[in-house]
Amino acid sequence: MGGRPAYIRTNVRTMALASITPRAPVAKPKLQAEASRFDRRLEEILQHAADVFYEKGYEGASMRDLSRASGMSLAGLYHYVESKERMLYLIQKHTFLTILEQLKARLQGVEDPDARVRVVIQNHLEYFLANQKAMKVLSHEDEVLTGEYRKEIAEIKREYYRTCIELLNQLKRERGLEFTSRIAVLSLFGMMNWIYTWYNPRADGDANLLAREMGNIFLRGIGSAAK
Amino acid sequence: MGGRPAYIRTNVRTMALASITPRAPVAKPKLQAEASRFDRRLEEILQHAADVFYEKGYEGASMRDLSRASGMSLAGLYHYVESKERMLYLIQKHTFLTILEQLKARLQGVEDPDARVRVVIQNHLEYFLANQKAMKVLSHEDEVLTGEYRKEIAEIKREYYRTCIELLNQLKRERGLEFTSRIAVLSLFGMMNWIYTWYNPRADGDANLLAREMGNIFLRGIGSAAK
Repeated sequence: MGGRPAYIRTNVRTMALASITPRAPVAKPKLQAEASRFDRRLEEILQHAADVFYEKGYEGASMRDLSRASGMSLAGLYHYVESKERMLYLIQKHTFLTILEQLKARLQGVEDPDARVRVVIQNHLEYFLANQKAMKVLSHEDEVLTGEYRKEIAEIKREYYRTCIELLNQLKRERGLEFTSRIAVLSLFGMMNWIYTWYNPRADGDANLLAREMGNIFLRGIGSAAK
Repeated sequence: MGGRPAYIRTNVRTMALASITPRAPVAKPKLQAEASRFDRRLEEILQHAADVFYEKGYEGASMRDLSRASGMSLAGLYHYVESKERMLYLIQKHTFLTILEQLKARLQGVEDPDARVRVVIQNHLEYFLANQKAMKVLSHEDEVLTGEYRKEIAEIKREYYRTCIELLNQLKRERGLEFTSRIAVLSLFGMMNWIYTWYNPRADGDANLLAREMGNIFLRGIGSAAK
């Protein structure tokens, strides 16, 4: 779904997961193999957890539900992750880091300020459409995390927000436009994030089509000459 | 909040509540007074219920929580409303009917197709900003209702959607524009609905300001000549 080749999704997942799992000692091949088995298993657990949160809501899901969905015992699950809150935190961190790192990579070498905004839209929509359940969970469980978990996720989201604001400010300067960057970027996030409530691949086409239409509305909307 | 005079909110509430409470016999003044006391009390209960759903989520809220929030006994609460699901249904019906009826009233006599789209935006944002807790509840608990409740709410939402699509189609015809009405209107709903996640009255101004900015982005975005 979303038209992105599977290998890109896989690479991105691996890249982002590397940063959310504990750094394992890598001196010996055997330990490295164990660490990567651990990572892969944890990734599967998080994917099942996103499904369970999607079906039952975060509050309604128990560690027992989560272990059942992963096909493992409760004790087995605790070996990988110590709490439901940590799972939600890892899902959020994985998601937002992936979107952010992928955006930075795709912006490399793109100079035109319209094109840079189009990259934001394409990147965001592709990820959303390929991960609709997780995105709904993140939208709904936005205020569940506490303490350090909350601070860390808020910081990643803030960096994403700042990156997008900076792209809009650049566009404004270069084209001499006038609009409120904050309202514009948050309107754009709303346009894109809300798709989990209505997107139907048969009626609405793939991520490329949606990105083109939303890009047209948004760029013309802020007064840019984009076609 | 949102800058709308209190009397407008009151009128609208009363108007919409009249259509969600059972039609009471109105032959005798005494019965009428009782019906309106019932209506007023039910309206208070629903407002408290929206707060509780906002704090605890629909799944997490018990009838006991809901009775406590309304300052009444559990038995007293059941006198007014028979289940948690019915409360959510009544809140949804009240909200969507209010937005829809208010929109129809405001569109009376407005002929210019740009201005008609601006009325949609103004009306939607005013209601959202004045009822942010309820709007978050409705966004999150979109799929909870079942059976007849679900069908009835879906029909009201569909009518609202069709009304907005028709306004856009009219604008397209009159101005000779090209865009996908479905993606445009759902993008607009996204822009507006997402505000519950970010709106800050000190940073973002009132509903009028927000409606003007979003109206500019949206109308220019679909290619209309609007300023």
